[in-house]
Amino acid sequence: MSDSLLCLGLDPDGAVDAAGAERVCHVLLDAALEHVCAVKPNLAFFEQYGSSGYAVLERLRAAIPPDRLLILDAKRGDMGNTAAAYARALFDVLGADAVTVNPLLGGDSVAPFLARPGRGAFILTRTSNPGAEDFLDQPAGRDGQVLYQRIVDQAQEWDSGGGAIGFVVGATVPTAIAEVRRRVPSAPLLLPGVGAQGGPLEAAVAAGLDSTRAGVVVPVSRGIAGAAQGPAAAARELRERIAAVRAAG
Amino acid sequence: MSDSLLCLGLDPDGAVDAAGAERVCHVLLDAALEHVCAVKPNLAFFEQYGSSGYAVLERLRAAIPPDRLLILDAKRGDMGNTAAAYARALFDVLGADAVTVNPLLGGDSVAPFLARPGRGAFILTRTSNPGAEDFLDQPAGRDGQVLYQRIVDQAQEWDSGGGAIGFVVGATVPTAIAEVRRRVPSAPLLLPGVGAQGGPLEAAVAAGLDSTRAGVVVPVSRGIAGAAQGPAAAARELRERIAAVRAAG
Repeated sequence: MSDSLLCLGLDPDGAVDAAGAERVCHVLLDAALEHVCAVKPNLAFFEQYGSSGYAVLERLRAAIPPDRLLILDAKRGDMGNTAAAYARALFDVLGADAVTVNPLLGGDSVAPFLARPGRGAFILTRTSNPGAEDFLDQPAGRDGQVLYQRIVDQAQEWDSGGGAIGFVVGATVPTAIAEVRRRVPSAPLLLPGVGAQGGPLEAAVAAGLDSTRAGVVVPVSRGIAGAAQGPAAAARELRERIAAVRAAG
Repeated sequence: MSDSLLCLGLDPDGAVDAAGAERVCHVLLDAALEHVCAVKPNLAFFEQYGSSGYAVLERLRAAIPPDRLLILDAKRGDMGNTAAAYARALFDVLGADAVTVNPLLGGDSVAPFLARPGRGAFILTRTSNPGAEDFLDQPAGRDGQVLYQRIVDQAQEWDSGGGAIGFVVGATVPTAIAEVRRRVPSAPLLLPGVGAQGGPLEAAVAAGLDSTRAGVVVPVSRGIAGAAQGPAAAARELRERIAAVRAAG
């Protein structure tokens, strides 16, 4: 759906085993795929089922049409040659179009994820969890920046032109989204935290839209999987609410 | 080996497939196990072989005697409920005694790894890679600290008494090891970066030893697997060099 900015988050928690998790994923894909531009499995919820869960991830690629992005939420961050092995796992083995990356270890830890033409990496900036205040919101460097702002500025220097660079900003803090958008006028922003985490959908999207009224992807997991009205109706409603924000610009 | 502070790093890169990686691991375990106190697989080098590689990790636990620690080098870092799923994967499915954790996302991202009695988490501080200069070495907070120092101070407040807390400090920067040791007189320190990365073994160990001339674990991967004299002789020599530093105190 090129006109949707909604992303289906797949966090199959609470299944009895990997087969149960896989069934949950397919139920959600069947219900929500027509309303989303991307699908974002978080690897933790598959790895908790061991190699059987990892095998579910291997099979997911085939269930996602080529006109939807597969964003693997892995938040890997390790040094150079190790990051290259993670990039092989995520891009080559699991077939990701894009991945999330933890930038704490700096340039060489991110480089392998930005070296793939046609693929992309979303760098973590200001996340939606309480612990984001511990380091990401703290002063960093000597010029009044806080750490998440410094990450955005530094990451632009890593942009090699090989793959696409984007940024993750929690929907719970629209002011941070606006701050990141000001620094990167045209980079795609991934805005998790809507729904169960309480992020305000409309304010987050409005803060993140670029000059073409696009440039954001809004992943929702529990807000679709656990919705009282069912996942298809929930996804349709979320998609329409995002569209209304775009139209109001 | 309770008198050894050497740890066998398992980074089976360059094998043709997961079965080849598993064979490499067992050759190294057979050669080096008698000289080490712990074994540290880095998950990236298994995940690059997909679910078959993850299954190798599942089987490794059985090859490691109960008197050696299994330290899973996963560097996971995700928010609360997701971190809990990673903790289940690493502790319950893969049987880790300890794990490495990326603290960028703050307290709730680390808490599930510190909640297990009898298990432990090593928090990343100043890593051994070039990119550590990008953020970890930069001023953080308002009191002249740099980020890796702030991480150490903050992490001590997270220590719940449930599981053991330790810290990862790259062996390439002995001054950082001494700085961390000054802040945490009795926490175990994991000191990667000896060997292929050029960290000075003797200086790193001397900087990290606690008041009982223990409290450090020195993982070596390529310096054992790729040693000209073979892995058994390399592990013996490394163990003896570490023991000489302890005896010189």
